[in-house]
Order: sequence, then C-alpha cells, then structure tokens
Amino acid sequence: MPSIRKMTVIGVGLIGGSLAQALREAAFCEEIVGVGRDPGRLDKAVGLGVIDRYETDLVRGVRGADLIVVCVPLGAIGAVFRGIAGHLEATAVITDVGSAKGSVASDARSYLPGSLARFVPGHPIAGTERSGVEASFAQLFSNRRVILTPLPETDDEARDLVRRAWEAAGATVTEMSVAHHDEVLAATSHLPHMLAFSLVDTLSRWSDRTEIFQYAAGGFRDFTRIASSDPVMWRDVCLANREALLAAMDRFMKDLDGVREAIREGDSVRLEAVFRHAKQARDAFSAIEGSGKK
Amino acid sequence: MPSIRKMTVIGVGLIGGSLAQALREAAFCEEIVGVGRDPGRLDKAVGLGVIDRYETDLVRGVRGADLIVVCVPLGAIGAVFRGIAGHLEATAVITDVGSAKGSVASDARSYLPGSLARFVPGHPIAGTERSGVEASFAQLFSNRRVILTPLPETDDEARDLVRRAWEAAGATVTEMSVAHHDEVLAATSHLPHMLAFSLVDTLSRWSDRTEIFQYAAGGFRDFTRIASSDPVMWRDVCLANREALLAAMDRFMKDLDGVREAIREGDSVRLEAVFRHAKQARDAFSAIEGSGKK
Repeated sequence: MPSIRKMTVIGVGLIGGSLAQALREAAFCEEIVGVGRDPGRLDKAVGLGVIDRYETDLVRGVRGADLIVVCVPLGAIGAVFRGIAGHLEATAVITDVGSAKGSVASDARSYLPGSLARFVPGHPIAGTERSGVEASFAQLFSNRRVILTPLPETDDEARDLVRRAWEAAGATVTEMSVAHHDEVLAATSHLPHMLAFSLVDTLSRWSDRTEIFQYAAGGFRDFTRIASSDPVMWRDVCLANREALLAAMDRFMKDLDGVREAIREGDSVRLEAVFRHAKQARDAFSAIEGSGKK
Repeated sequence: MPSIRKMTVIGVGLIGGSLAQALREAAFCEEIVGVGRDPGRLDKAVGLGVIDRYETDLVRGVRGADLIVVCVPLGAIGAVFRGIAGHLEATAVITDVGSAKGSVASDARSYLPGSLARFVPGHPIAGTERSGVEASFAQLFSNRRVILTPLPETDDEARDLVRRAWEAAGATVTEMSVAHHDEVLAATSHLPHMLAFSLVDTLSRWSDRTEIFQYAAGGFRDFTRIASSDPVMWRDVCLANREALLAAMDRFMKDLDGVREAIREGDSVRLEAVFRHAKQARDAFSAIEGSGKK
C-alpha cells in the first residue's frame, strides 16, 4: 500500500525526475504530479513515464499534495515558497534538494513561516554532470547518501516521511545541522566544482586551446568532468553558500600557494610529503567508497 | 619478422611494463630485457610475462640492445644516462617516457653527448593513477597519443624507429618542440595534478576529515582520482618542469582569484559566464574525445 496519495515534484529535471521514477518503482505514492514552466519539457516527462501528469501553475500543482519536493535551482526556491504559501494542505510536508541549506532555511523562514513544522530541508549527495529529465533515472540515489537538516521547528512526523521517501528511493539518510552541512559540502563539492570550472575556463582561453585539449589524457577527462555541470545551478550554489565556500577557497588557495612556493624553491622533500599525504588520503577514500569504484 | 632484435626497458613499472607487453604482442622485437634495482620486482615482471629476463646492472642490461627505453622517474634519468654512456652499441637508439622533456634533453646533453643523434625524447600521454608492473597492461597505449620531441641532432632513422615502436603499441605519434611540449603538458596534466593533490591534502587536514570524505560524491571521486598518482614521479615532474608549471599555476591562480572575487561580490552574471564558458569547452572536449568516454 502506498505511503502517501499524492506527491508533487516542482522542477522535473535530473534530481526531481529521478526521485519521481524511484518512488514510482517503489510504489511510494499513488500519483506523481510534476510542476514546471515549460509544457514541452513536462510533456516529455509524462512521455518518459517520469510523472503521471503536470501543472504549470504552482497553486494547482500543490493542491491536495501530501508531499511536495522542491527541485528547482537554489536561486528559484524563494519564489516557489512564496508561490505555494497559503495554498498547502494542513498536513502537507515540504522538502527540497538544494546543495546548500542555509539559504533554503532562510527562504523558508521568510516565505513559509506558517509551515516550518512541516518543512524538512534535504540534500541528496548524488547527481551527474548531466541535467534535465532526459538524464534522470530511478537508480540515481541507490546507495547514495541523503542529508536532512531539520529546523528546530520541524516536527518528527514530517522528518520521518521525508526519510522514508529517500529510503524508498534506495538512499541512506543522515542528519546534520544546516551550518555543518554547508561547511562540509563547500569542502567536498562546491570547492572542487570551482576548481574544475576555473581550470577549464583558464585553459580554454589559452592561445592554442584546441591543441591543449587535444593532448589532455584520461586524468584530465576525469578531473574536469564536473565542469560540464549546469552553470545556473552552480551560480546559485555559489551565491547561496557564499561564506562557507569563500572560507574553503581561502584555505585551499593558501595551501596551493604553499605548493607553488615549494616548486619555486625546488623543495623536493616538501613536495613529496604533500603528494604522499594526499595519495594516502585518496587511497583511504577509495577504500571507504568500496572496491568497485576507484 | 621482428623490427629489432633486442629491446631493453630500464624501469619496469606501469609504463615500461605496458610498453614491453604491447611490443611483445606486436612481435616488434625478439627479446625484451628489463633493468631495475629490485630483483624481487623484476622476478615478478618475468613471472607476469612482461619481460623475458632481467639485469640489475645497467651496463649488462644495455649490452647488444637495439632500442633502449628509459622509464624511470624524471629525477633518475640523468643517473641512468651517466650509467649507460660509453656502453651503448653504435647503432643503439635511446628514448625515454618522461612527462617533461626539457630536463631530459638537458640530461642527455650533459651525460650522453656522443649519442644525441640516436636519442629521441618521448612522452606517451597515457597512464593511470596506479603504478608498478602489476598495473601494466598491453593496451595502455592503444589509441593514445605519444609526443616525440626530437632534438636538432636526432637523426631521422632513430626517430622513425621510436615512432614505429609506439605505433606497434597502438599509439598515435605526433611531434613538437621540447619547450612547446612542456608548456602544453604543464597546462593539461601537471597543473591539474597539483590541484588534485593540493585539494586532497587540504581536506585531509580539515578537523573532521573522516566525515568530510564520507559525504563526498561521485564528482569528487573523479576529480581527485589523480591524487592517487605516484608521489615520487610527481615530485620529479614539478622540479623538472618548474618554469612552465609555475607559469600555468600563476595563470590559474589569478583566474581562480577572479572567481573568488565574483563570489564575494555576489556577481551572478560573471559567475554564470565563467561556468557556461567552461561547460561549453568541456563539452567540446568530450566531443573530441569521442562519444564513448564522457
């Protein structure tokens, strides 16, 4: 028997589309409604069997929904909250999938002050460099982590429903504070994305750019894969998680400058120590990740 | 019929071992002799069928060799050249696989001044983050590029033999100047390795390092894979290609600082432009690379 009757996914892209497919396979809900602005893309989502039907109007979309999952870029979440405020069922639970949680919590306080008990900020640590509903698939969250960052106001029932939904999608759910989430993600995700975007941007403005990319090997391909990620999503992440990201960048740039100095001074001992330490940490990370994925 | 009788591989690790296996499969030579310092590892290489036999003495190893491939870390190449000087057959062709070519050319001028006509500096743009003969395999160079950087003194016959060897191993061979090679590789390989090593080093010294790696996702895994590379090899690359690498790092750090400023100022237009430009370049690179590998 399904856990809930109606789920509404606002923003049917890679994440929203994949969650919809996973919960459909898990028979978690009776009906999945997509909400978006572009009927053409939503028609495609229906055609792909991702959602049952769609609305282009937020208010119509959330009407009667037991669970509302907001999957729009961080910069658009405030407007969505504003649009649905006052139109939610009393028992409706709201969650989101934004990569930074401080800005989302702040938006919720501003625009959904009456629904904080039913709001559960969330972040699936999953995704690919691809985007759009065409890239979505039911197994995206399988064996992936989802971090929930409940607010002090969030009630247990709401949190449990969101947890069960992600678990039904195959994910492992953990909880942490909003601030801690934003610091951890700045380090492991937002900073690496800045480096990859910035490196490819730098190289592509090199004078002999075609040749430069021609001689790039497999290591470069892996290293820069995340530079193919969605520019709008990442613009919003930078703005939403600005303080934690700046702190992580400062820390990294100081250390990189140390490596630069060691190279300039020909300090072979220090260079080898840094590389050896990094290799040990990376190899240990591979071991955590499991033998299947290097 | 084999192209040459005896090939000597000095340094039977990932690259040397893979080349030996590829040329054995291609029946390019009648005999493959490995040279190294550790009999235990060389026994393993014989056991794996990578080489026919081995010597731990350089002079005995190169005796009678038609082709000598030096596959030791950059910092050890000078000592190898010094060790084989005066003991080479008059027709012996020497090549190497170092990731920087300026230092190797300089070592050759210092220690093999009488063999410059038969010396062909080379660099296969292939490899994995793994190292050692256990990681070697015959297909490592299949459809990969090899850059040769012949010296003004290098004769055509020597260059052609090295080219044919790499082509027999499945590689595509191109030529460029020593200086141009070092600049291109600083940008596409050495700089990314510095970023990956430095990032993992920074994160592993974060206070909550275990947790930080725990929440790292697939993008992080790909981004940091090259931080598992051999520390000694990379220490040597940094020292050997110091000037070009410092220039590339300066260029990158200036651009990264620009991204940092845009984040600090909340300049969403600039951030989106950088990310969009990087995504376009990376997607174009994927297209060059072929549809099979993203």
